[in-house]
Amino acid sequence: MSDPISEQSDPHYAVDAVNRVKRRHDRGFYDHDTVHRLLDAAALAHVAWVIDGRPFCTPTLFWREGTRLYWHGSSASRMLKNLSEGEPACVTVTHLDSLVLARSGFNHSADYRSVMAFGTARLVTEPEEKLRALTMMVDRFFPDRTATLRPSTRQEVKATSVIVMEIERASAKIRARGVVDDDEDYDLPIYAERLPVRTVIGEPEPCPRLIPGVTRPETLASYTGGRLLEEALSAAYATVHGADRPG
Amino acid sequence: MSDPISEQSDPHYAVDAVNRVKRRHDRGFYDHDTVHRLLDAAALAHVAWVIDGRPFCTPTLFWREGTRLYWHGSSASRMLKNLSEGEPACVTVTHLDSLVLARSGFNHSADYRSVMAFGTARLVTEPEEKLRALTMMVDRFFPDRTATLRPSTRQEVKATSVIVMEIERASAKIRARGVVDDDEDYDLPIYAERLPVRTVIGEPEPCPRLIPGVTRPETLASYTGGRLLEEALSAAYATVHGADRPG
Repeated sequence: MSDPISEQSDPHYAVDAVNRVKRRHDRGFYDHDTVHRLLDAAALAHVAWVIDGRPFCTPTLFWREGTRLYWHGSSASRMLKNLSEGEPACVTVTHLDSLVLARSGFNHSADYRSVMAFGTARLVTEPEEKLRALTMMVDRFFPDRTATLRPSTRQEVKATSVIVMEIERASAKIRARGVVDDDEDYDLPIYAERLPVRTVIGEPEPCPRLIPGVTRPETLASYTGGRLLEEALSAAYATVHGADRPG
Repeated sequence: MSDPISEQSDPHYAVDAVNRVKRRHDRGFYDHDTVHRLLDAAALAHVAWVIDGRPFCTPTLFWREGTRLYWHGSSASRMLKNLSEGEPACVTVTHLDSLVLARSGFNHSADYRSVMAFGTARLVTEPEEKLRALTMMVDRFFPDRTATLRPSTRQEVKATSVIVMEIERASAKIRARGVVDDDEDYDLPIYAERLPVRTVIGEPEPCPRLIPGVTRPETLASYTGGRLLEEALSAAYATVHGADRPG
């Protein structure tokens, strides 16, 4: 099995004991392009924290800019006791692509694409940076939408915490092989299949209280019923950050 | 807002500082039925661990029996240094149901159903318990399938780690409200919508190397293309554990 690291083009995340893919290392990738592509195709992440020595795993909407991840700090007070120095965190994004039914229990598996990103999470406190982050929290998913909204009040800005984490280490892990059985097992009279799984957008449901004449803006055209959510999210990301996406 | 805990029927998980839903406590549930229903509708969980004081968030397939969660310990050696006493873990399952576009940035949101389950994770070492767990790892998703497979070898059993966690604390958090704006904002000429998100099964892809005459078993009938994954998983769970599901 060739070394996936040496095949990768720069830039990539540094690899050490924290983020090295140990089991099935042939599934590991560390280059920015692979890691960022998987992050930008998702809206949902799971964040691991340590509070009083105990692990917590919190789901959240998130977004990326360059090598930084941002999310809404709904439980910031509990998560970030140490506001000045920050807290170590691990942000994980997973795309489940299939369940795999093989000819032996051992070879049952799943196709997936996941990223684990490690760094130190901090509260965004600088007013200008926070306002910018609150805009991106909406506009990263729905380009240019903030300009069309009722502006945020000072109280709303105060009530919203935003957390930022510079990615210090990251790895992507990908399995995309479907059914793989032991050579001799293919001769057995056992049914095997790949069962695809996909996350899709349903038909948009306009708010029943829209005032007459208000229609769906063109900027939401990427979010159509039946489309893969990850396609729509990737397209929105490219609209905001351009084809030459940051790092 | 009424207290959600007092409205709940027994049995429910004990509530303390670890699992109490703090922000938006009206979205919190602790009863076994709500928590278990959301767990049994999922195949993918994210597990948070602490290793050398650092948080790790690992995606994994998992399943439930009673008040125990099981998963495949792919990185067991790294996760479970302390095999005899176990390690604290937090297992989180999230169903993302929509993205919500409101008339203000502050009211942008998402519909979701999530569970955070806390306990001490241990390696399953007792041989009979491990064999049973390896059977359920397949049969929980695909009822009665193990009996149709090439039996596991001793080496395969040895190479597979199974982790079990008794749920000591758990909470479910549910938002299912779609667009909710401030009263005065409904008069504004701003478009708002609920954008549904669902995870579905694609058309099953039979292994191209099936030997002639081998057809899809009736036990997989629950997994049909276009069906919600959570419906199929819940149905499989009910088939295995009966309508009167354990606790």
